[in-house]
Amino acid sequence: MNQRARHPRAWLAAAAVFLAVAPLHAQTDPLPSWNDGPAKQAIVAFVQATTDKSSPKFVPPEARIAAFDQDGTTWVSHPMYTQVVYCLERVPAVVKAKPELKNVEPFKTVLSGNREAIAKLGMPDLVKILAATLTGMPVEQFTAEVKAWLGTARHPRWDRPFTELVYQPMLEVMKYLRANGYKTYIVTGGGQDFVRVYSEQVYGIPPEQVVGTAGGTKFGYTKDGTPFLTKEPKLLLNDDRAGKPEGIHLMIGRRPHAAFGNSTGDQQMLEYTTAGDGARLGMLVLHDDATREYAYGPAQGLPDTKVGTFTQALYDDATKKGWTVISMKNDWKRIFAFETGNPAR
Amino acid sequence: MNQRARHPRAWLAAAAVFLAVAPLHAQTDPLPSWNDGPAKQAIVAFVQATTDKSSPKFVPPEARIAAFDQDGTTWVSHPMYTQVVYCLERVPAVVKAKPELKNVEPFKTVLSGNREAIAKLGMPDLVKILAATLTGMPVEQFTAEVKAWLGTARHPRWDRPFTELVYQPMLEVMKYLRANGYKTYIVTGGGQDFVRVYSEQVYGIPPEQVVGTAGGTKFGYTKDGTPFLTKEPKLLLNDDRAGKPEGIHLMIGRRPHAAFGNSTGDQQMLEYTTAGDGARLGMLVLHDDATREYAYGPAQGLPDTKVGTFTQALYDDATKKGWTVISMKNDWKRIFAFETGNPAR
Repeated sequence: MNQRARHPRAWLAAAAVFLAVAPLHAQTDPLPSWNDGPAKQAIVAFVQATTDKSSPKFVPPEARIAAFDQDGTTWVSHPMYTQVVYCLERVPAVVKAKPELKNVEPFKTVLSGNREAIAKLGMPDLVKILAATLTGMPVEQFTAEVKAWLGTARHPRWDRPFTELVYQPMLEVMKYLRANGYKTYIVTGGGQDFVRVYSEQVYGIPPEQVVGTAGGTKFGYTKDGTPFLTKEPKLLLNDDRAGKPEGIHLMIGRRPHAAFGNSTGDQQMLEYTTAGDGARLGMLVLHDDATREYAYGPAQGLPDTKVGTFTQALYDDATKKGWTVISMKNDWKRIFAFETGNPAR
Repeated sequence: MNQRARHPRAWLAAAAVFLAVAPLHAQTDPLPSWNDGPAKQAIVAFVQATTDKSSPKFVPPEARIAAFDQDGTTWVSHPMYTQVVYCLERVPAVVKAKPELKNVEPFKTVLSGNREAIAKLGMPDLVKILAATLTGMPVEQFTAEVKAWLGTARHPRWDRPFTELVYQPMLEVMKYLRANGYKTYIVTGGGQDFVRVYSEQVYGIPPEQVVGTAGGTKFGYTKDGTPFLTKEPKLLLNDDRAGKPEGIHLMIGRRPHAAFGNSTGDQQMLEYTTAGDGARLGMLVLHDDATREYAYGPAQGLPDTKVGTFTQALYDDATKKGWTVISMKNDWKRIFAFETGNPAR
């Protein structure tokens, strides 16, 4: 006679535990591209606690807001921000329309194709390029230009469209949060109108849930009286650093319960998010995977960078404030959906 | 033998028609506070056409955006905009906190309680009052102040909270649109942060779907390092007239398919909305009911007003552009939910 038969009540208790636990295990893992570890556990624990009505950490559905930085958090931002690539690649078309710019700096340098010289352009030059390529046209024209570019442009390293260089683990987190009643937002230092062109298709996030650096528009009429909006070179919101919580207040009007970032540009957003009452989740992606993506910090002795800087001070702050650092190398089983053996997106 | 028995096929056809039509009649009228007429018909026809997949006017769910002006469109705005009443009634508290303002204009006049003198205050004075009562405090403090005021303030004519002076027919339109997959937005010349305090409770519209006149905020830290946002006296968006389509682009990023207004401040929003492709609905509330609410235009010979002006030019434009004018007197069976015989809200 075995142990089980000798203690029928113990057996029943074991069966009850099994039956209670089995449905959980039977569920599909909502985060299959994540390795088991503190980062994945933090996400699952947050979602479970905030959606369980009996939990003291329960968050009512209408307050479930999650904010995601984009560059370096949900897609590749090296060696250059995608939108900056767009602006540089738009310069020939701009000069074609305005030939008088051909011999004017910084357009002359950009047209030369001299990468070293282009890399040395300063902020005032970059501002001129952004103004010339992102403003001055009707909003519909801008959308069409970005859409056309995204269809043909390729990342130099992977030779794939930029919109395929999104992090599969982060797409899974967005989906998982939405399946649990969270409204997901992009909160980016990038251009709001730029990201809105592809946010629905790439992230499942509608344009109205994209908060980004935003310029003004000007309402006017065509000759036949049709109203239209022109993008103006007038900055309304610089959605970076302190501008992120300010942008969240302007565009959402509620404090998020979860925020995801990867650099000092996201620090204030995480501070603001996690300073709220009740359950809050703050997470930072650390790019420590030179093999599969890039490695930069300078936190944890990683190479320094000017694109998406993750300082040691930010790392220490994360530890102090209970934010979770996501190690790209250790926490992500896969990085891109197109990697071999990846489940379909 | 009756007609029916003699023509069994005709009877069958009649039965089929009855069965097909019956469920429609059996449904509860989604707009019970509207009289049958061109306004109600325009709303129902728009919703039916844009949600019927077989209709050439079908609008995919993600593009279903409807914008509602607030003052004079969804609630009473006479004799004074509610937010202006708020600002004037906040002055004593502001002066209590800053006694040096006691003998400074325009605060002195407001404190005097002299209605005629207050009514004569000019725009520069009003701007000083708005700045003193709407800015300079943390956003949470402002929300708490507005909430407290709404709980005690009363409209002089009805002696009821301002939040009860919402138009029941418009609440029904919002609900009807939402039941048909539309995302409803408030797009108001009033303060975005002010309206967000009560929009969910009063209109069922969450704060993130309120677009209004917006000032900047400033991110900072308390002495113990807690981050917070202060409301700044810096105008980011004047969400009136041309500012409405500009605000819609900034905050929503899509052109609405339906827009509701009541004054020249809404003209550009309706132009922008109805200039889009496919089915579009533009509607304007005409206050022609002095008995149950107020009568003002000066369109159609109604008394002139400075609060929510509906000019004859706007009226003519509505006719020309196919916008529907809602006659409060003729189209609305009931105006407020609290009226005798009203169905529950």
